Amino acid sequence: MFDSRSFDAHESVTYFSDAASGLRGIVAIHSTRLGPAIGGCRAWFYDNDEAALQDALRLSRGMSYKNAVAGLPMGGGKAVIIREPGKAVTEAQFEAFGRIVQQLNGRYITAEDVGVSVTDMGYVARNTSFVSGLHHEGAAVGGDPSPKTAYGVYCGILAAVQARLSTRNLKGLSVAVQGLGSVGRHLCGYLHEAGVKLVVADINAAACEAAKQKFGATVVSVDEILFQDVDVVAPCALGAILNEQSIPKILAPIIAGGANNQLATLEDGQRLHDRHVLYAPDYVINAGGIICATAEYLHTGNEKEVWDRVAGIGKTLAEIFSESTAKDTPTNVVADALALRLIEKSNIQ
Amino acid sequence: MFDSRSFDAHESVTYFSDAASGLRGIVAIHSTRLGPAIGGCRAWFYDNDEAALQDALRLSRGMSYKNAVAGLPMGGGKAVIIREPGKAVTEAQFEAFGRIVQQLNGRYITAEDVGVSVTDMGYVARNTSFVSGLHHEGAAVGGDPSPKTAYGVYCGILAAVQARLSTRNLKGLSVAVQGLGSVGRHLCGYLHEAGVKLVVADINAAACEAAKQKFGATVVSVDEILFQDVDVVAPCALGAILNEQSIPKILAPIIAGGANNQLATLEDGQRLHDRHVLYAPDYVINAGGIICATAEYLHTGNEKEVWDRVAGIGKTLAEIFSESTAKDTPTNVVADALALRLIEKSNIQ
Repeated sequence: MFDSRSFDAHESVTYFSDAASGLRGIVAIHSTRLGPAIGGCRAWFYDNDEAALQDALRLSRGMSYKNAVAGLPMGGGKAVIIREPGKAVTEAQFEAFGRIVQQLNGRYITAEDVGVSVTDMGYVARNTSFVSGLHHEGAAVGGDPSPKTAYGVYCGILAAVQARLSTRNLKGLSVAVQGLGSVGRHLCGYLHEAGVKLVVADINAAACEAAKQKFGATVVSVDEILFQDVDVVAPCALGAILNEQSIPKILAPIIAGGANNQLATLEDGQRLHDRHVLYAPDYVINAGGIICATAEYLHTGNEKEVWDRVAGIGKTLAEIFSESTAKDTPTNVVADALALRLIEKSNIQ
Repeated sequence: MFDSRSFDAHESVTYFSDAASGLRGIVAIHSTRLGPAIGGCRAWFYDNDEAALQDALRLSRGMSYKNAVAGLPMGGGKAVIIREPGKAVTEAQFEAFGRIVQQLNGRYITAEDVGVSVTDMGYVARNTSFVSGLHHEGAAVGGDPSPKTAYGVYCGILAAVQARLSTRNLKGLSVAVQGLGSVGRHLCGYLHEAGVKLVVADINAAACEAAKQKFGATVVSVDEILFQDVDVVAPCALGAILNEQSIPKILAPIIAGGANNQLATLEDGQRLHDRHVLYAPDYVINAGGIICATAEYLHTGNEKEVWDRVAGIGKTLAEIFSESTAKDTPTNVVADALALRLIEKSNIQ
């Protein structure tokens, strides 16, 4: 545990189990130096405990970096619930998870992630107040964060276009959107409104058809979307899609999308840099959701203020792009160094 | 983790690290069904993290059983601090450990164990109130628990002698005490006062000489002490001393001492039973220390009341011996089943 590369000075890693409901999982708290560790709860199938641990550790540290660079007064953590093959996570298990979050007494704030819905978070919230991403009524901030995540990606694309193509006018530019899930779909909406020519791909044919009808998007196969001759490729689906095999085939001068963990390895950031592809670090550009969840949790700001904060992602990326050029250093390396500086300069602890 | 035999439905297992002080360790909380998990903090050298984990899990479950059978309103937990080769645990590390205990918010109450002193616990207590085993002044309960642990063992020997030799008069009986640490030494005092003929052994020659002078004890070698032709053997030193090799050579009809984990395996309980050796389950007879630490922590009872509660160990053992005879079942199996019944019948959770 302690000497593994991914442990990386985590403050704590807690395995929990609840005999009555059969719940099992891990809460990893990477850092609380900037504030309580906020990060989603993922319910997933894992081959073994070690795979669940590695996922929790990697995601938890990622949340520290993401929250720091987003300027949030929050540390980084993540929870994984280990799903049993062929079984859904039960209401009783989400309630038990709420008790476990409550026991951490505010060091970790949970929220939705893969495999967990807003409804599930409602079960969690029966037993803890250390939760975000709940249903909200009226003008309150909260609920589904995808539109804000997509808006942050849109602002990031604007910043990248400014940096690489020296314009802030997207009209007539082309963007290839990989994945039409909730973030990809909303992103297409913003881009279409700005006059962008869209190329899209998704394994869901109905989603592609809808994008074609609604936004006049050109549909291509999922195998080809990354390699389109466009101004921007926006990965909004899988992780690890930027790798030794794919990078040499990329034609677009900009990669800026909402997917998590787009780089297969750190070295792939260097590969993109060497090919003069401007890469918007994923955890910087996709921070809109956590900015929203934090505002919901801390009750800081109304909807308008939160949208303004999400727009700030563009400014942060502009600074990262500029430093990357000045130092001839890959953008992902610049972002990681910025995150570490922000975490380490904190004297809150 | 979850499927390992020693995990055994632990409620939580937390790996912690403190970057500033270099502290690393594990807090295992087996059960809080009967109350907050109380159990010592051990600072020890381990070959690897897995060895530290196994130690924490085994000891933590043991505390659940011990506390339940002792009738305490406490669950079971244990902490291990992983010592670095050749280094002492620093004051800053004990302070950091206090912060970690505090974060657990009362689910785990810490105390001294191997490698941790009352002074060290003072450092821990700077950052948490969830601690027992501190220096105490005047009539308050607390401080060194060894005299009470020894008194509980003495009461247990009385119960065993009653059950097997049908007398409560120890005068003229012989007891072989293995180990003259703080518990063994105090036990010799009580037994000597009751007119017992003592045989002792310890790797520390000065301790043996003192027992000879003070109590008229016969000194034998550490290799021979378990196999003396006496009425009672009282192991008060190492664990796993009752095993496949040693059991056939034991002549005494009773084994009743304060050491932890005396049985190398569960089957060794059956071996003793088959040879009609009456074995006082270790975690039942040595509960005096935790009875004292709990009273100190909960502020329940003065010194007199705590001594009376420790004396109750004799009654508990008498019931276990009687059930063991009635059901022709080894005493350790009877004790484990009692512990599980007590934990599971609880509806506190």
